[in-house]
Amino acid sequence: MSAEIPSEFNLIEWIRRNSQQFPASLLKSIGDDCAVFDPGFARALAVTADVLAENVHFRREWISPSFLGRKSLAVTLSDLAATGARPYACLLALSVPAGTTTEYFHAFMEGFLEETQRWNTPVIGGDLSASGLIHVSVTAWGWISTGNPIYRSGAREQDRIVLAGDVGLSRLGLEAISQEGSAELSTISDDKALADWADDPFRFRCLKAHLLPEPRIEIGVWLQEHQLANAMIDISDGLMSDLLHVARESRLAAELDVHCLPVPAEVADRKLALDVTLNGGEDYALLFTVSAEQLEHLRSSYPSQFPAFRVIGRMTKGEPSVYLVQQGTREKYEPRGFDHFRTQPLTHDH
Amino acid sequence: MSAEIPSEFNLIEWIRRNSQQFPASLLKSIGDDCAVFDPGFARALAVTADVLAENVHFRREWISPSFLGRKSLAVTLSDLAATGARPYACLLALSVPAGTTTEYFHAFMEGFLEETQRWNTPVIGGDLSASGLIHVSVTAWGWISTGNPIYRSGAREQDRIVLAGDVGLSRLGLEAISQEGSAELSTISDDKALADWADDPFRFRCLKAHLLPEPRIEIGVWLQEHQLANAMIDISDGLMSDLLHVARESRLAAELDVHCLPVPAEVADRKLALDVTLNGGEDYALLFTVSAEQLEHLRSSYPSQFPAFRVIGRMTKGEPSVYLVQQGTREKYEPRGFDHFRTQPLTHDH
Repeated sequence: MSAEIPSEFNLIEWIRRNSQQFPASLLKSIGDDCAVFDPGFARALAVTADVLAENVHFRREWISPSFLGRKSLAVTLSDLAATGARPYACLLALSVPAGTTTEYFHAFMEGFLEETQRWNTPVIGGDLSASGLIHVSVTAWGWISTGNPIYRSGAREQDRIVLAGDVGLSRLGLEAISQEGSAELSTISDDKALADWADDPFRFRCLKAHLLPEPRIEIGVWLQEHQLANAMIDISDGLMSDLLHVARESRLAAELDVHCLPVPAEVADRKLALDVTLNGGEDYALLFTVSAEQLEHLRSSYPSQFPAFRVIGRMTKGEPSVYLVQQGTREKYEPRGFDHFRTQPLTHDH
Repeated sequence: MSAEIPSEFNLIEWIRRNSQQFPASLLKSIGDDCAVFDPGFARALAVTADVLAENVHFRREWISPSFLGRKSLAVTLSDLAATGARPYACLLALSVPAGTTTEYFHAFMEGFLEETQRWNTPVIGGDLSASGLIHVSVTAWGWISTGNPIYRSGAREQDRIVLAGDVGLSRLGLEAISQEGSAELSTISDDKALADWADDPFRFRCLKAHLLPEPRIEIGVWLQEHQLANAMIDISDGLMSDLLHVARESRLAAELDVHCLPVPAEVADRKLALDVTLNGGEDYALLFTVSAEQLEHLRSSYPSQFPAFRVIGRMTKGEPSVYLVQQGTREKYEPRGFDHFRTQPLTHDH
């Protein structure tokens, strides 16, 4: 269904011209009523959908269309990573206000397609429509060729809790943007310009974590293929919130050792540093649980080019809750999760 | 990713409590990072995404949340019908403004789930987020067990063009609503109340065609399973626009016999009647092409409980265009397609 979109925004033509090679299993790509593929290559297929809505998940003044396009795919692929599925293809449902410029549309699509090429995840269908605000909905498909997918529900008693990737930085990046954001940010579409704007290596890391999160596809797929995790989740709401999901689905308690957490040393306010570590959100790090035996394998065979993993706690028998352990005490913790723009509430016009 | 949604809108819990039986091939349903299934049952999978955006595709004053939920799935499933794929499952990405009531959310979900049950298409994942206006994005996928999917590109020279389902009525329904719409419409959530509001059988048919379109799943699947169509499309933009898609993808010209078209007799203005037939849009009828031999089979074996089909034209050699044939003349036609709310342009607040 098309509606009120300037004719130069021809999503189908744009994608046809700019897409990478499609896999041989793809029988029909974008441009028909459906995309069609032969799933014979897959033992299991994983599907997921994510939304980025203007003024809820992002502000147009604070992220360039290119970065927005890249982030839209990245956050969706992160869910595939958390299941251990290798990306296969995606669908893009893009809604833009009538006044959107062709330049904006092209920059968004270039960013989106750059990310599809990076992750070998061709966009094979979608929907382009008008809307009051920008709204991006991405569905991604991944596949598993052997072994079982990794679910939130697979954790076992005495499993160690392992973290791979950064937590807290994305939240610090968002705070920096919401406090110091300038219109210039909406034009920044590469690392170099972002580093210049950040003017500090740690700030750059934080901004990048927020604007261009890394889906940990290689780690998730590697863990699945080697069956080296019992449960897994990607951290989108916040470390504690997402750990609570694992605890609930696995019907276990989860204990985190505070002194094992990667609390960023660069943050002078140590209370804030711990808070963003526990509740930051939009981290897209992977949290997984492993048996003692799996941990041994992990230590001996985890690829050195991956971001380092760290053991931060363990799953224990008990009501599904999360606990912080420090200096001999064990305290139940109520995750606050991640409220977008908590510090700078946005007004909705509707 | 969750954001600023009142906690009572728990999409996952709601769906878990209210969903139908899941297929045995579904390994993991809603509530994990991904839904996962074993595609071993399918020779081919067809995937599609559709969007309904507030004030573009619908106005909240003119459609009840229950009807909106049902329509959201129906228009997406129509794409599966056009490929001949049997619905398997769907994902729902729903964005609602912060002020949305629990009643509205529940009514929407009840309508949506009613439709998933009707079409045996469980919702197995999704995303619930805030947004400025209501935005519904549905991804659905279907399967084909034997034979080839039916594409827009499969038409052959001398194929007859066949139509199954109504055209034009949906547009007349939209015109009626936009001219006479009242707040009462936003509370109508069953046939009986809609018939009362319509106060005339033909008006009721038109309103129903617009508010509760029928995806022609049975027809599409039957045609695919019997391999009785060479090309197929569902009519969402308008008969002529969508026929032009078939002509372009098949690299043929398409001729329609005006006297064979189902121009609604109830419309006194014959020019308007022909216009809505050719350019109405949102009809979700199926348009397909068949060889002489296929047509013979169709005439002898087409199930009598399906909406009748009619032959309305033929594919011919020539530049991809659509032509109207009447009284011995053959005239090239420029489809105007379907502009939502053409008669009552909406202002966008952004």
